[in-house]
Amino acid sequence: MGSESSETAFPKAGEGEDPGFGTRAEPGTGRLLGRNGQFQVERTGLGWRETFSPYHLLITMDWVRFHTVVLLSYLVANCLFALGYLALGPGSLRPAPEGLWERFLNAFFFSAQTLTTVGYGHISPQGTGASLLAAVESLFGLMSFALATGILFARFSRPHARILFAKRAVVRPFQGGTALMIRLVNARTNHLIETRARLLLSRLRARPDGLIRVYDELSLDRHHVSMMPLDWTLVHRIDADSPLSGVTSQDLERDQTEVLVLFQGFDETFSQTVHARISYQADELLWGRRFASMHHPAPDGRMRLDVGKLSSTEPAPD
Amino acid sequence: MGSESSETAFPKAGEGEDPGFGTRAEPGTGRLLGRNGQFQVERTGLGWRETFSPYHLLITMDWVRFHTVVLLSYLVANCLFALGYLALGPGSLRPAPEGLWERFLNAFFFSAQTLTTVGYGHISPQGTGASLLAAVESLFGLMSFALATGILFARFSRPHARILFAKRAVVRPFQGGTALMIRLVNARTNHLIETRARLLLSRLRARPDGLIRVYDELSLDRHHVSMMPLDWTLVHRIDADSPLSGVTSQDLERDQTEVLVLFQGFDETFSQTVHARISYQADELLWGRRFASMHHPAPDGRMRLDVGKLSSTEPAPD
Amino acid sequence: MGSESSETAFPKAGEGEDPGFGTRAEPGTGRLLGRNGQFQVERTGLGWRETFSPYHLLITMDWVRFHTVVLLSYLVANCLFALGYLALGPGSLRPAPEGLWERFLNAFFFSAQTLTTVGYGHISPQGTGASLLAAVESLFGLMSFALATGILFARFSRPHARILFAKRAVVRPFQGGTALMIRLVNARTNHLIETRARLLLSRLRARPDGLIRVYDELSLDRHHVSMMPLDWTLVHRIDADSPLSGVTSQDLERDQTEVLVLFQGFDETFSQTVHARISYQADELLWGRRFASMHHPAPDGRMRLDVGKLSSTEPAPD
Amino acid sequence: MGSESSETAFPKAGEGEDPGFGTRAEPGTGRLLGRNGQFQVERTGLGWRETFSPYHLLITMDWVRFHTVVLLSYLVANCLFALGYLALGPGSLRPAPEGLWERFLNAFFFSAQTLTTVGYGHISPQGTGASLLAAVESLFGLMSFALATGILFARFSRPHARILFAKRAVVRPFQGGTALMIRLVNARTNHLIETRARLLLSRLRARPDGLIRVYDELSLDRHHVSMMPLDWTLVHRIDADSPLSGVTSQDLERDQTEVLVLFQGFDETFSQTVHARISYQADELLWGRRFASMHHPAPDGRMRLDVGKLSSTEPAPD
Repeated sequence: MGSESSETAFPKAGEGEDPGFGTRAEPGTGRLLGRNGQFQVERTGLGWRETFSPYHLLITMDWVRFHTVVLLSYLVANCLFALGYLALGPGSLRPAPEGLWERFLNAFFFSAQTLTTVGYGHISPQGTGASLLAAVESLFGLMSFALATGILFARFSRPHARILFAKRAVVRPFQGGTALMIRLVNARTNHLIETRARLLLSRLRARPDGLIRVYDELSLDRHHVSMMPLDWTLVHRIDADSPLSGVTSQDLERDQTEVLVLFQGFDETFSQTVHARISYQADELLWGRRFASMHHPAPDGRMRLDVGKLSSTEPAPD
Repeated sequence: MGSESSETAFPKAGEGEDPGFGTRAEPGTGRLLGRNGQFQVERTGLGWRETFSPYHLLITMDWVRFHTVVLLSYLVANCLFALGYLALGPGSLRPAPEGLWERFLNAFFFSAQTLTTVGYGHISPQGTGASLLAAVESLFGLMSFALATGILFARFSRPHARILFAKRAVVRPFQGGTALMIRLVNARTNHLIETRARLLLSRLRARPDGLIRVYDELSLDRHHVSMMPLDWTLVHRIDADSPLSGVTSQDLERDQTEVLVLFQGFDETFSQTVHARISYQADELLWGRRFASMHHPAPDGRMRLDVGKLSSTEPAPD
Repeated sequence: MGSESSETAFPKAGEGEDPGFGTRAEPGTGRLLGRNGQFQVERTGLGWRETFSPYHLLITMDWVRFHTVVLLSYLVANCLFALGYLALGPGSLRPAPEGLWERFLNAFFFSAQTLTTVGYGHISPQGTGASLLAAVESLFGLMSFALATGILFARFSRPHARILFAKRAVVRPFQGGTALMIRLVNARTNHLIETRARLLLSRLRARPDGLIRVYDELSLDRHHVSMMPLDWTLVHRIDADSPLSGVTSQDLERDQTEVLVLFQGFDETFSQTVHARISYQADELLWGRRFASMHHPAPDGRMRLDVGKLSSTEPAPD
Repeated sequence: MGSESSETAFPKAGEGEDPGFGTRAEPGTGRLLGRNGQFQVERTGLGWRETFSPYHLLITMDWVRFHTVVLLSYLVANCLFALGYLALGPGSLRPAPEGLWERFLNAFFFSAQTLTTVGYGHISPQGTGASLLAAVESLFGLMSFALATGILFARFSRPHARILFAKRAVVRPFQGGTALMIRLVNARTNHLIETRARLLLSRLRARPDGLIRVYDELSLDRHHVSMMPLDWTLVHRIDADSPLSGVTSQDLERDQTEVLVLFQGFDETFSQTVHARISYQADELLWGRRFASMHHPAPDGRMRLDVGKLSSTEPAPD
């Protein structure tokens, strides 16, 4: 994975699995995974035709930009068709106002009425040229709006597991030993089932030929939950077998440690598998604290979950 | 899972897997899973922006409410646009009736004809302002109706396995021992294939520091069926290895026992995986009865399945 | 599975897995799986509200019936709305022809123009009542056509693996022993990948308390293929371990034997998993013949597959 | 798989799994897999009704052809409906121009306005016949455009993993031994996760009764990556256990060797599993070179990946 051309960079078996970020490490490199789960990688070297992916672009841009794109396209299309009707001469539309600007406006509104197929008819095409252009425009309108509305609906209905992770992970005494704990919750009322989680540790290590990044799997007390109606606290026990055995906060800082959390589940509302990711760096770990409870019975006998307390912690007893 | 901050609450290995409801137990807490398979959990503590999920809301509300939302939105949008046309002055639409209420009605109907792109044209926009507003409204109408109709179709076509479970489970003599049996059937003629089921037992247990909830897997004679054209009876043998070995109806009642049933299958009609859940509490078990047969050959040589007899039982022979 | 209430009917471990049809056997019962892969089961005992699944119905009915449903609904809806306009009096639409039948036709066509949002405007609603009804009708039209067109497209685009199976299976000498072979092919040019197959044997067996149906898995030389560009011949070797070891054609006939074939694969064109099934009864097996080759290199160096020869056989050498 | 009728052609256990291309080998046969991942197989012998799959056709044809099909269908439909209006006589549409060609054009444009439901109304149907035909045409238009726009959107939004593979694979000294390396990258900014890869070796072997094709799995140092933000280099070590142990470039050429690469991953943007394939023939392997690094830190601390250097190699040190 990554730059296999420097031999020592390739992870040896037993050193833990590289999750895909490669083992090249340079002092200036920032975190692997953004707090929002986005890969911190930039791509260059391809022509626009090879990377241009309009659907991806339109589906992932923010809502303000999306609406702007739709509105501008509508404006531009109407301007172009209006120029077409103008080019066909003053008699191409009825009524035909006097001035050029008035004729342009008239053609522009006729175009809008054609593109959206609203077609009031108080402006109408006259002669073969204008009628043909209008026939083409209404076809173009139907096809273009199929794309626009399809993308709109796809944006609206795309499964986004809104998985929230506690701002910080905790390292605390637990059942006679120590444990690293990460808490997460489903912010939505969607039913999430068959959820799974993995923890990966990324650290820098000095090798004869320079720094490399090594990865270790952190075992979990439970890595699978059948249903996730409540919060889920991932528990990694820091025992003798743990790669974190005996390390201090300073060690983690020095090694540019990053704990990667991978989560997936099946969203029953959308009938689709959803994924979420986050990473914690050394300064995002809290030592000696534990997560405060988020739930208690409601008066009606159901459980009540206070999602706002997701990141709440309290001193952990020894 | 759940409140890890009270150590004893965390399930130890070997005690059975917590399906996600946590091990906190308080006397007042009701059942974990509703009879309709819904999690009995209430969420608080998040601002509306974090939990607001319009698609989820619109897709899961009942049909009466959905139609009301659509109708009201249509009414409100038309009123707002009508006010817009009114604000542009009496000459903005032709014809322009006399009174204010008449003008409002005229504008309201013109708006409806624009929003739905029906555009008869017997009312038409006059001047740049009204024409522009109409051009914007028809765009708005296309985009809004794309959402409304998309959601309508998604509601209509969403895969709902209509899995019916017998009202009660039975515990009965079976092949020299005893067995817990749960019967289910696919109410639809959809082809369900590759179906799977799991049984989990949830009980309260007294611990030095209070009650906790413990979970046990109940093994099944068969947990997988390639095709499910008929009913399926899940059979858990209560032998020496079973967590239910030797327990009485009173024990189950006292321990607030709940048998969780998880079901999944692939629906060929919808080409999607479907899930169903139910739980049985102690008072929903029948002792010493067995399920009556639901099927017999039809005159044409095909099998006939009487789904109405799903919950029928008869005395079980010893 | 099936009627667990008669103990002996439940398959014991080791007897092979019941694929879901139950073990009840009555002499008059026909085949389990139709040659088209449909379950041969009829459902009764449910009210129409519990089984009514309009989406499923509309998506699985044949094309002639679907188009008839659409056309009739269109006709009925237009008639009803036409009656509504008539009820609002002669002045509700302009122009208003003389006779009642003429007025009905006028209203009918106005309704059709409103429902489809074509809205020519040469007929237009007059007065508040008719305008309101038209506003409601155009909303109703948009929503109804969203369902109709959505279902139309869903029908058109639903993944149907067109897997063809040879009309008969063969039993023939093979590599010093005997083998049961079943040939199948993908009739479409879709890329099918990661395909899997299973063979199950269903036979009647006499037990002290009557006939029961028993099932056996038939092992395959290969049950998985990474890519399926060509035909695939499933090979079950009839060796000492095979449930078919030593059986004759007469034995199979007497035991009402049915060989069930389950197939699945991932269709790259539709990005979905597809399934196919078939069953062969005793009289659909050919003894002592083998499948003729279906492919040979084309002049351009590519392989050529003659799908028309799928069921072709030739005498098998000893 | 393939022609089971020649016994020796069937792969014996232990010889490696046939990925589905069969073991028949004839000297004239070209490569199994095109460089674009398409199967090199031609299908014959089926009637058009059995193979005709309009959705598949329309979804996979190129964009120019698709737009041509839509435009031609629009033209043809309008011509046919125009002939229908003509057949109903000169009074069927208003206005009714003089000449036949003028009447045809008038009917053609009226048809276009009806089919797209734009319905200006400056041309309108007169009498029962024309009104009925227009009512049918608008229904037909809605249904047809549902197909056309549905297919358009499906084409636009279909998940295409744009996985690029290096033009050539390399065979080079690696960690004291030799390794075959294949490099690939995700050309898009989509998040690809849970990616998997497999290498299969296809070679011709002489058998007493002729050439056959044999397959071997080539083990990978890593066949799974959790996330694929960067390039991925597949590494097969040519050690004593490798089927490639000791072979030379000439051996590979002689045996018509083809290395098949199968790739799959989960595309988070499309929430779907995507697949990619390629094959390398003997002359597409580079000996004694290694892939040049594609990535280095960007000034902002993120990694930068130069996709244009995917196929770049440099001399490999011993």
